[in-house]
Amino acid sequence: MVDPVKMVIAVRKDLDMGKGKIAGQVAHAAVECALKSEKYNKKIFKEWIDTNQKKVVIKVNGEEELEKLLELCRSSGFIYAEIHDAGYTQVEPGTFTCLGIGPARSSELDPITGDFSLL
Amino acid sequence: MVDPVKMVIAVRKDLDMGKGKIAGQVAHAAVECALKSEKYNKKIFKEWIDTNQKKVVIKVNGEEELEKLLELCRSSGFIYAEIHDAGYTQVEPGTFTCLGIGPARSSELDPITGDFSLL
Repeated sequence: MVDPVKMVIAVRKDLDMGKGKIAGQVAHAAVECALKSEKYNKKIFKEWIDTNQKKVVIKVNGEEELEKLLELCRSSGFIYAEIHDAGYTQVEPGTFTCLGIGPARSSELDPITGDFSLL
Repeated sequence: MVDPVKMVIAVRKDLDMGKGKIAGQVAHAAVECALKSEKYNKKIFKEWIDTNQKKVVIKVNGEEELEKLLELCRSSGFIYAEIHDAGYTQVEPGTFTCLGIGPARSSELDPITGDFSLL
């Protein structure tokens, strides 16, 4: 069975961030997850890079759903990156805007992220 | 004079990509630039990480402007990442969607990217 490695980035839709802002926050999460993975899970990192660093951007309704995902990341031992915005523009300082998860196998990620829609 | 290190990611606005698609493409560029920088310019990479990996997402009108920026990156010796989409969704396979530049000092980046608007 094919079980690709991917990274999932969950973004809050309730903040109504502009598309440039969203892109910046998602990129923060992706870079942080990639660097952690490179450091702590070289095998999965290499497979992710070699398969074109697949990324899936999903949306969550608000902070509560993001916190719930964060808890699942912690309890499941996923690599993750919790992004809080500096808040110079668009959102309050410290706002939890998005969460990067993985890279990890789809079979591990899908049970916790598979029910959310793509952004 | 303060001369921060930042990464600039230029995105084509003529492709009318959705915000999730844009975020994914920008994240590709950011990860690739970060990894290249970590490999080839550790000092700047470290400074960029230590100053919260500043990213600026700008928009260009189309492929011609992106190609022009790419040429400037090559001739100026910047680290860059040229992102061509696999094209499963929204755009044709191989479409040049965005370009990551840096991380590098603002004083070096601004002459080539400073005239573009934020996305």
